Amino acid sequence: MSSVSSNQTVNVALVQMRHSAAKDENLARALDRIGQAAGAGANVVCLSELFAGQYPCQSEDHRRFDEAEPIPGPTSEALAKAAAEHGVVIVGSLFERRAPGLYHNTAVVFDADGSTAGVYRKMHIPDDPLYYEKFYFTPGDLGFPSFPTRFGRIAVGVCWDQWYPEAARLFALSGAQILFYPTAIGWLPDEKDEFGASQHEAWQTMMRSHAIANGLFVAAVNRTGREGQLEFWGASFVADPNGNLLARAEHAGEETLIVECDLARIDAVRTHWPFLRDRRIDAYEGLTRRFLD
Amino acid sequence: MSSVSSNQTVNVALVQMRHSAAKDENLARALDRIGQAAGAGANVVCLSELFAGQYPCQSEDHRRFDEAEPIPGPTSEALAKAAAEHGVVIVGSLFERRAPGLYHNTAVVFDADGSTAGVYRKMHIPDDPLYYEKFYFTPGDLGFPSFPTRFGRIAVGVCWDQWYPEAARLFALSGAQILFYPTAIGWLPDEKDEFGASQHEAWQTMMRSHAIANGLFVAAVNRTGREGQLEFWGASFVADPNGNLLARAEHAGEETLIVECDLARIDAVRTHWPFLRDRRIDAYEGLTRRFLD
Repeated sequence: MSSVSSNQTVNVALVQMRHSAAKDENLARALDRIGQAAGAGANVVCLSELFAGQYPCQSEDHRRFDEAEPIPGPTSEALAKAAAEHGVVIVGSLFERRAPGLYHNTAVVFDADGSTAGVYRKMHIPDDPLYYEKFYFTPGDLGFPSFPTRFGRIAVGVCWDQWYPEAARLFALSGAQILFYPTAIGWLPDEKDEFGASQHEAWQTMMRSHAIANGLFVAAVNRTGREGQLEFWGASFVADPNGNLLARAEHAGEETLIVECDLARIDAVRTHWPFLRDRRIDAYEGLTRRFLD
Repeated sequence: MSSVSSNQTVNVALVQMRHSAAKDENLARALDRIGQAAGAGANVVCLSELFAGQYPCQSEDHRRFDEAEPIPGPTSEALAKAAAEHGVVIVGSLFERRAPGLYHNTAVVFDADGSTAGVYRKMHIPDDPLYYEKFYFTPGDLGFPSFPTRFGRIAVGVCWDQWYPEAARLFALSGAQILFYPTAIGWLPDEKDEFGASQHEAWQTMMRSHAIANGLFVAAVNRTGREGQLEFWGASFVADPNGNLLARAEHAGEETLIVECDLARIDAVRTHWPFLRDRRIDAYEGLTRRFLD
């Protein structure tokens, strides 16, 4: 199932960045951070959602489609090259132009030799004030896969996916050992004081629950800094298969979090809290329905 | 869908108890607590898992089957009578003797007039050291329903069910507004120091995540006190549809937690964080499979 032995330790790096409007600058800074992380022992490096630009969905603006690229394209090729150069797996989130009028919010996993380990297209697309994603992104059509890499079997959900237990379970059932969530979530100025702490807590709680329910590592990489009206709340983190926080970045400020993940914990945790053993697959068919009332 | 208007406030009471080996004594004390809760304004009272006895599954002992009762039976009838007498909905968890050699871990929801609003049979059955439930309980065959009552539409999961996002989702899709989890979970003596805090935190995190993912109220009722080798960890709680803890009992000591739940919050939360809107029901069929690798 996996290309790593069951007792291998993997060092995961989460690159929490601020993002400017200049793609070249974001890419250069991301490549720099990847190189530094590799130098510090990282095996798998994950960037934040749509790292090459500012978050494009605060309004419905046709000009923002110009920021998209085909895959492969210049940005994906730069990441592939960096993966090979440093011998690290890279998880990159890209605004994909698949065809005229068909755009996706896509994550690519580059293996440590620069080859493409797999592609995921964001399945759950939000639409809320300042997060007008349904205008830009066609929902993904590649399901919830995971990909064997030199450093473990990896799955990627993207932002809104993190609220869906169904997605996390399907990634786990496909064999994922580490589940990454590149994300771009922040506070709205008129909500932060009253709801900000609860919103952040819900976000973290939800992903910790995916780690617990599925007995795998979960790593969330968020933006930081202000763009337009949104204050991205950073706080990138890694949770172990019991949902314990192994490390967490600050809300404000750039940071590269490097966290050791012992993949042998997965089997140990799952045999001690054997949730996968007892699923009632005979009784879950209603999950493919919209409502049951 | 529900028998309450959307802006009704419901007072939920969680009865956190110690349990003796004497069924009469446990029942009398539970009835007492129900009456007190009703007097304090409670509308829905939930007892802990298998409240009529000590937790029977610390060993595999055929004599423990004698503690089971048919439903209806003396214990369920006493609860029905109390519901009518006090005008409260009661959630009671019972060791059910359904037929010779066929036993279930069953929850009954009694409506406020004493009628039976619905029956749920624990679907996910654990089996771990000191929790030998697979020896006693046949897995439930009634799916994941919810039941309209005078005080809202109620669903009940039982203990091990609380670790399964599938169950919580199906209860929500059936229209549940408040999801109760009668439970009996505690620390093992040789694990508490090293793992106890993490175990309790995972348990609470998991159920808070059900509240968040599904935008409903979650109420967990646990035992407290020591029985044999198990130290039940109490800490009964109610979470709102954002996953915030509205109230939480102590680990040690009997307590009746009475918590006001504003059912109008459900629609407000679900339209602000519209997770149900965006489920990819076209892509969830793998959830009915054991593994996908």
